[in-house]
Amino acid sequence: MIGGRRPISGRKPGDKRIRVDRVHSPYFRYTGRGQLTAKAAASAPTTALGRFNQRVKAFLLGRPLANEEEIGQRLSKKKALAIFSSDAISSSAYATEEIILAFLLAGVGSAAFSLSIEVSVAIAVLLGIVAFSYRQVCIAYPSGGGSYSVSKANLGRNASLVAASALLIDYTLTVAVSTSSAVEQIASAVPALHDWTVVIAITAIALITLGNLRGLREAGSIFAIPTYLFLGSAFLMIGLGVFRILFMGDTGPTPSPAVIRVTQETATNVGILILLRAFASGAVALTGTEAIATGVPAFEPPESRNAARTLMAMAIILGTLFIGITFLASNFHILPMEFPKQTVIAQIARHVYGDTVGFYLFQAFTALLLFLAANTSYIAFPRLAAVLGEDGFFPRQFAFRGDRLAFSTGILLLGVVAGAVVISAQARTHALIPLYAVGVFIDFTIAQTGMVRHWLRTRELGWRYRLAINAVGATLTLIIAIVVTSVKFVDGAWLVVVLIPTLVAAMRFVRRQYDAQAKELEVRDDLVFQRPHREQRVVIPVNGINRSVVQAVMFGKSLATDPSLLQAVYVTTDLDEAELLRERWERQLPGVPLVVVESPYRALVGPVITYLDVLDMAWPPDKEAPTTIVVLPEYVAKHWWDRLLYNQTAKRLKGELVGREHTVIADVPYRRTELREA
Amino acid sequence: MIGGRRPISGRKPGDKRIRVDRVHSPYFRYTGRGQLTAKAAASAPTTALGRFNQRVKAFLLGRPLANEEEIGQRLSKKKALAIFSSDAISSSAYATEEIILAFLLAGVGSAAFSLSIEVSVAIAVLLGIVAFSYRQVCIAYPSGGGSYSVSKANLGRNASLVAASALLIDYTLTVAVSTSSAVEQIASAVPALHDWTVVIAITAIALITLGNLRGLREAGSIFAIPTYLFLGSAFLMIGLGVFRILFMGDTGPTPSPAVIRVTQETATNVGILILLRAFASGAVALTGTEAIATGVPAFEPPESRNAARTLMAMAIILGTLFIGITFLASNFHILPMEFPKQTVIAQIARHVYGDTVGFYLFQAFTALLLFLAANTSYIAFPRLAAVLGEDGFFPRQFAFRGDRLAFSTGILLLGVVAGAVVISAQARTHALIPLYAVGVFIDFTIAQTGMVRHWLRTRELGWRYRLAINAVGATLTLIIAIVVTSVKFVDGAWLVVVLIPTLVAAMRFVRRQYDAQAKELEVRDDLVFQRPHREQRVVIPVNGINRSVVQAVMFGKSLATDPSLLQAVYVTTDLDEAELLRERWERQLPGVPLVVVESPYRALVGPVITYLDVLDMAWPPDKEAPTTIVVLPEYVAKHWWDRLLYNQTAKRLKGELVGREHTVIADVPYRRTELREA
Repeated sequence: MIGGRRPISGRKPGDKRIRVDRVHSPYFRYTGRGQLTAKAAASAPTTALGRFNQRVKAFLLGRPLANEEEIGQRLSKKKALAIFSSDAISSSAYATEEIILAFLLAGVGSAAFSLSIEVSVAIAVLLGIVAFSYRQVCIAYPSGGGSYSVSKANLGRNASLVAASALLIDYTLTVAVSTSSAVEQIASAVPALHDWTVVIAITAIALITLGNLRGLREAGSIFAIPTYLFLGSAFLMIGLGVFRILFMGDTGPTPSPAVIRVTQETATNVGILILLRAFASGAVALTGTEAIATGVPAFEPPESRNAARTLMAMAIILGTLFIGITFLASNFHILPMEFPKQTVIAQIARHVYGDTVGFYLFQAFTALLLFLAANTSYIAFPRLAAVLGEDGFFPRQFAFRGDRLAFSTGILLLGVVAGAVVISAQARTHALIPLYAVGVFIDFTIAQTGMVRHWLRTRELGWRYRLAINAVGATLTLIIAIVVTSVKFVDGAWLVVVLIPTLVAAMRFVRRQYDAQAKELEVRDDLVFQRPHREQRVVIPVNGINRSVVQAVMFGKSLATDPSLLQAVYVTTDLDEAELLRERWERQLPGVPLVVVESPYRALVGPVITYLDVLDMAWPPDKEAPTTIVVLPEYVAKHWWDRLLYNQTAKRLKGELVGREHTVIADVPYRRTELREA
Repeated sequence: MIGGRRPISGRKPGDKRIRVDRVHSPYFRYTGRGQLTAKAAASAPTTALGRFNQRVKAFLLGRPLANEEEIGQRLSKKKALAIFSSDAISSSAYATEEIILAFLLAGVGSAAFSLSIEVSVAIAVLLGIVAFSYRQVCIAYPSGGGSYSVSKANLGRNASLVAASALLIDYTLTVAVSTSSAVEQIASAVPALHDWTVVIAITAIALITLGNLRGLREAGSIFAIPTYLFLGSAFLMIGLGVFRILFMGDTGPTPSPAVIRVTQETATNVGILILLRAFASGAVALTGTEAIATGVPAFEPPESRNAARTLMAMAIILGTLFIGITFLASNFHILPMEFPKQTVIAQIARHVYGDTVGFYLFQAFTALLLFLAANTSYIAFPRLAAVLGEDGFFPRQFAFRGDRLAFSTGILLLGVVAGAVVISAQARTHALIPLYAVGVFIDFTIAQTGMVRHWLRTRELGWRYRLAINAVGATLTLIIAIVVTSVKFVDGAWLVVVLIPTLVAAMRFVRRQYDAQAKELEVRDDLVFQRPHREQRVVIPVNGINRSVVQAVMFGKSLATDPSLLQAVYVTTDLDEAELLRERWERQLPGVPLVVVESPYRALVGPVITYLDVLDMAWPPDKEAPTTIVVLPEYVAKHWWDRLLYNQTAKRLKGELVGREHTVIADVPYRRTELREA
């Protein structure tokens, strides 16, 4: 096998250098009767190519970790804030811009600036309520899973699957939106990169995916520093900006014609629908609030308390940042620009820091933070997929951990889907925003409703107070979910509305398959299985006489308990050739009958299968049908191109045989040295 | 299996409605001792999905044909002219244009018109010589294969592989060039389609590929009519045009400014290099001349004579057409136009027929003929690939015929590669021309040189005369091959110069693989194989106790000749669970030892393989190592999505096991109804 394993080199069967009763010791240790524990060497590749592959993998992903090392992967509060909060905090980089854009598109003139502060304060209040509600989730559900766990425990399967679907969509969009926004920040600082945004975004997603395949701890260490750099420089910017507005009468940079036009328009009467649209746009600031509740088990013990504290810290930081940035944008009269792309936050930073290295550093930190935000989803998405895999709603391979204790399948899936989303949105943040908040608020609503049920059920100490908090949270987030979906429906929210039930249906379908399989395979506990009960018929399709065929025939002969149930089958279009073969066969392989099947339509697979069927049909009606063992000679591929050159026919035959009743397929791979002439 | 076959419905084993000794009769008939002949029903699918697939395939491709029907697929001379000559004849649609373009790009002014006639006459003379040389190939090599067969017989392996590579490149370019030119003819008539040329070209290639998968005869019937329609309307155009020039003093359409500029430029002194470039460009008219010699076996008997006559008819028709069209273009002062695309032949037709339905019909016929020309390669390329497959230079599947007696693999490969070439050249004929003639003339040279050797070797009646013809042909085509390669080198001919040795190396490589395999597998004719010689160890990797596992264990038990060589292996990360399993195992499956392997690194495949290695190493050094049979329980996929949900682990394990020494893999697929409790 390519890149595969051969018997351990230098330790051939019968090698006398090592005592036979100690050969296992480099690879296993005995840990009980009939019980071994594998050492790392037991998984080590033994071919040159295999070792090379492993070295490449170790270089890219790091060395494999044993299960016991997992506890060391837990996150401190500071690291957890960096990882789990980057999503929420980073939304300050685009939420203000979305509010201003919503007002601009509604044509409300200079009211855009004053109203955006009011809207941002309203959103910050909402953030406080949601965070406070989620704080209770961290405490009540230390096993993580967030709204999925909560709703599973309190609201039943359907609600929990809706929550899970909404979360999966959200995590994917977090990657796409954050990466797109990061690239826009970069393009704002370096306009020359304007045409390369999609390429940069895809490269970033690929690198983040790779980083996460390496496992959790490294992610925390690498990513903690830039988060704090962003927070430092952002608060510095807000401080400097507020100081200049309040005490120096700064009214922002020299206004462009577009800004002059907007500021000179009189504020018209702003309708409720316009306010709602602006609110719905800015509500993306709340995305990521649930991340900490989902990731509680990744915290250092005591997990719940640490998570709750991190959550509250995050809410305060985010609220302050968001209001601060909106305040600056409003007082500096800053509008988003498209050609060349200039984000609102970049324009603020350029004004406050000037065109100095400070501005470029701030843009770099912002972009880094946004990439970290994308990284948040790489923790949460695979964990949720693994929980769903364990619950049977996702294919089971999502619950397997890879070499580095990371859920590799989930990480890869997220990377691929998010990459596709970024490409189809051409890495434009604004195009993705209408899809983004919908799932978040659906999810909030389900989680808070679940908590209401939780308190009603448990009636723990102080349950009335806690219930009240969650009830307020549930009602508010439900209203906002409806508002966001309605006002953004035609802009893209409809897609989420379609996608959630589709995902729910798919997950229910997967679960139904696994349930059916388990039921089908179930064995009663009191049965004792004693002996095989069927006769065995051995059929060997052959293409002539060669060493591979002879080996297969010898093996088939050793299987056949009854020689009359053994035969080789040769399918041909040329009967003369078949006669020559028969003459040679009977001389060289006596005792194995050869059946020649002429196939005028050149079909090979069909006649073989039908021949097996005919054998079954011809079996005496009063006896039970035998197990058919089809022995397939196979030529071992030594190189990748061998797959193209050999075994094409065997492959097709095997494909048709799997699933035939009472049929076992025995692959007899031919390797040089195997056959001995007798 | 999906779309696969189940035991024939209503004919279960033990079914008493049919006499046991007659059950074979609907599917096979006995044709000798131990010999059956399959009827069509033996390949008929027996599931609903299988039948549906077959019906779709029959609709797209037609019903399967038996080998005996092949003779009915032979081509009459008229049909063969339509199929094999369309390539050569169709080059008249672009050869004139390429000559004029070559002169224009050299800036020779009005000399472009007068010189192009002289060049075309020279090319027509060359065509006559080449055709006359190839006529002798048809007669001497009735088995087809053209220059490949000739050079294999006379010049040895390397020359024949160079010829084969040149031919394969040529056939592919024929498809690409003809399709591109056809689309340019369409765009010349309907300028609105100018932006859709690539899409139309790819669609056309897809349809032609599909048509050829249906088999040869239909191709002949469908395609004979348009060829004759083109010939009729083209000769009518030439006749009318010549009449108007000679007797009515017609000097062409109202000249455009570009034409006036060119015609007013005095003819400068035209250097030999310019003449050579024009000649090399026009030499594409000769492409396709070899097609008939390659396809001799497709003719009705007497194959050689019919092919030779068809070849001479083709040369006369093409020569006349080519000179005629160039004469008209020259006297009408017509230049190729790019925006919008107006081919030379389209401008001639528009002038002669006026803007009437006649013009549009002529354009349609020309485009159809060019599509037919592409079709020529769909006969020749797969046949050559099949010959190369039989000779071991191509993977063997190229020599398998499909249901419709067509070489499906070769047809598909040609379609894909030609499609890729068209896309990368953006369906522009002119971009492909520099690559096109190089291979053709290399091929001509090799074939003619081979014929010279042939006459020297056989010295048949009149060999001196025949040798002289081929020697002239060989010399001339060699000179032209050198000229074409030199003057077109930087424009793309270098690609062919690189590609030919690459293909030769690849084919030699494939052949070396097959030779090595055959040698490796060879069995001496005098050996008699009597008995199996190895003990059998049975190892069953299990994931718990379920019906699928129990079935595999029962099967494994029936294989194990020595109970001490039978064991089940359970790899786990959880030893407590393993203890529970052991208790249940020993109660329910007595007599089958269970080995538990703890795997702290969560690896599954590695520990299993290493455990097998350890078993081999622990085998007594003085005894021969046993065959290891790894019995794999497999859950049968009923639906396509099952492949994603189940057997992922078994698949990985199998991949690593194939090629392990002394190892046989026994797949035990689980189907409901199979297991009986004892």
